[in-house]
Amino acid sequence: MKVYLDYSATSPVKNEVKKALLPFLENNFGNPSSIHSWGQVARTAVEKARTQVAEFLNSKPEEIIFTSGGTEADNLAVRGISNWSAKGKFQISNSKPHIITSAIEHYAILRTCEYLEKNNLAEITYLKPNKEGLITKEQVKKAVKKNTVLASVIYVNNEIGVIQPIREIGKMIEKENEKRENKIYFHTDAVQAAEYLPMNVDFLHVDLLTISGHKIGAPKGIGALYFRKDVPLRKIIFGGEQEMNLRAGTENVAGIVALGKATEVLRDKKYEIRAEKTLKLRDYFIDRVLKEISEVELNGSRQSRSPNNANFYFKYVEGESILLSLDLVGIAASSGSACTSLSLKPSHVLMATYNNAERSHGSIRFTLGEKTTKEEIDYTITNLKTIIKRLREISPLGVK
Amino acid sequence: MKVYLDYSATSPVKNEVKKALLPFLENNFGNPSSIHSWGQVARTAVEKARTQVAEFLNSKPEEIIFTSGGTEADNLAVRGISNWSAKGKFQISNSKPHIITSAIEHYAILRTCEYLEKNNLAEITYLKPNKEGLITKEQVKKAVKKNTVLASVIYVNNEIGVIQPIREIGKMIEKENEKRENKIYFHTDAVQAAEYLPMNVDFLHVDLLTISGHKIGAPKGIGALYFRKDVPLRKIIFGGEQEMNLRAGTENVAGIVALGKATEVLRDKKYEIRAEKTLKLRDYFIDRVLKEISEVELNGSRQSRSPNNANFYFKYVEGESILLSLDLVGIAASSGSACTSLSLKPSHVLMATYNNAERSHGSIRFTLGEKTTKEEIDYTITNLKTIIKRLREISPLGVK
Repeated sequence: MKVYLDYSATSPVKNEVKKALLPFLENNFGNPSSIHSWGQVARTAVEKARTQVAEFLNSKPEEIIFTSGGTEADNLAVRGISNWSAKGKFQISNSKPHIITSAIEHYAILRTCEYLEKNNLAEITYLKPNKEGLITKEQVKKAVKKNTVLASVIYVNNEIGVIQPIREIGKMIEKENEKRENKIYFHTDAVQAAEYLPMNVDFLHVDLLTISGHKIGAPKGIGALYFRKDVPLRKIIFGGEQEMNLRAGTENVAGIVALGKATEVLRDKKYEIRAEKTLKLRDYFIDRVLKEISEVELNGSRQSRSPNNANFYFKYVEGESILLSLDLVGIAASSGSACTSLSLKPSHVLMATYNNAERSHGSIRFTLGEKTTKEEIDYTITNLKTIIKRLREISPLGVK
Repeated sequence: MKVYLDYSATSPVKNEVKKALLPFLENNFGNPSSIHSWGQVARTAVEKARTQVAEFLNSKPEEIIFTSGGTEADNLAVRGISNWSAKGKFQISNSKPHIITSAIEHYAILRTCEYLEKNNLAEITYLKPNKEGLITKEQVKKAVKKNTVLASVIYVNNEIGVIQPIREIGKMIEKENEKRENKIYFHTDAVQAAEYLPMNVDFLHVDLLTISGHKIGAPKGIGALYFRKDVPLRKIIFGGEQEMNLRAGTENVAGIVALGKATEVLRDKKYEIRAEKTLKLRDYFIDRVLKEISEVELNGSRQSRSPNNANFYFKYVEGESILLSLDLVGIAASSGSACTSLSLKPSHVLMATYNNAERSHGSIRFTLGEKTTKEEIDYTITNLKTIIKRLREISPLGVK
């Protein structure tokens, strides 16, 4: 049996998405910037996709920039704002722009903030999560300064799946902005949220929002940044005037068409229905694991949690060993996130939340997808029980 | 009849390339950073493609970084070097890093240099081409300063197709480096050269080189930067540790596989054979146009010119009108490059070469590809003659 429980690392391309993109690997190969008919076919397709993404987010096409993925969109949001604010109109106190973020963001945000900080281009506040992995709007509010230009908080954490109170933070920032001279823009990395949570940018009260194609059934290498019309974004990749002169480079037409279609598919089938179905299966999984395996804890809040995420701390075992054992019986899971699997450092998310290196090293993420079945979950639990038992018997880490 | 003569804007995906990439839009959907079997299939494919690209350039796999396209690769080359040299070891005279480039580079280089210049991050010398559109190694040599860290010269110009003496410049720089304290790195944007010219980085004596997938039969949204092992490159997109920690973001696996295959296809069939075949047809085209249409000139050197490029200045007519008329009879050509077609400004390449706005506005680029036939060229000439005649009759620009 082959069981893929790593949907947060990447997801298969959906059939209807593949069907939509294929003509753009065939006859419709034009460059959207060309004025002849080949170009116009491509241009029309790109703009249709922009409308599809815009509708998915309840925004306007001119507020969508296509990027090479979630990481570039995150970079664009943070550096696009800080570049502007470092000079431009923002000169309140001649201080550096200040950015508020959390200690458990995706590295696309964290590493970008660290770069700005190291190069003296911005001042960063990293909010610590509570023991559930959650950030509160009060924390964000308290961190606000005169020179704050941006807050960026991840919607659904890519490791432990906790849902941050984006809407509450957004509303709070909106209120703050009423009394401020310079606006604070609010960005959320919604890469892991797009399938199961509300993505309406007005409902969420966000100014910028990142999505990624390959987490929702489009291929890798395509993403998008939503930015509210009044956001003074600046480009970070220079060259041609594509994407409203905010992102240079020939458009990835097939990828863009795919992302458009993937968001249309999500929009057509209500997220609540997907969420309910997946949640049921996920809860069955969590309940059985917590009951049938000893010395195991769930990482992150159980309540405020993405319906597809289960992240367990198995005491006295190495996550890496569990993963390899699972792989041998055909089950795909993950320790930390795929993006950080190349590093041997303990998960920064688990460290910030629990400050416990053993917990970081003994944790495994399972993420469900639309095709996950009860049989797959049962097969996984059966194997997990055997594997944990065996690994604990030979474990140098302690009892059991 | 449909005649595509805009191969420099973009090219169709080759059949063997499509065949190679399709499995990565289907069952092989894993994230290369995942350690389970799905991930390993993707990882193996990415590394195979890296080897294919490396072999095409006569380099090593660890010298290839995959990017979202030629533009990002160009940005990475220029900013990756200047970021390093602005601090790092390079502190000879506490001056800014100095970059030498030409006034007729692709905008991916020019706009990046302008950004660095405006933000006081680098000092830039823009070399002016001669009346053939050519830069000489003497010009580059003369521009060298103590604080020069990078020279970037486009291999084949994307508008007028002239071939710059990359090898001569590279050898000159190598000699200069022998007497210098700090090395000058040499980059070339080889996006338009990959199909018809030598791409051996040792032969060319370059330290960095950009290629783009969609110009050589892979899809849009994928490119690569070659960088010689000793080049102190710094990343420009922050996040995960992908691509040897030099380019963050989940790898565009299908695109990477496609680029690998496309370079393999090029390598298998010698460039000299392609070049000879295309050159013959292109020369037939140029000769007939210059002979059968009055008041027309070829833009750029005829001798040092890519075999697939014909760029004509038709006096007394607007390039835009020619393009639209050609499109009506099914022929795709281009005024300037696709990347700049959104702007109404005259071509910076033609302006730098001829300093004649009328010439810039009255010029048309035709670029041939592997599938171009003599029948297509004949059809194009027949129509071009009628179109130019008609447009000149109604032209407000002058006689004929």
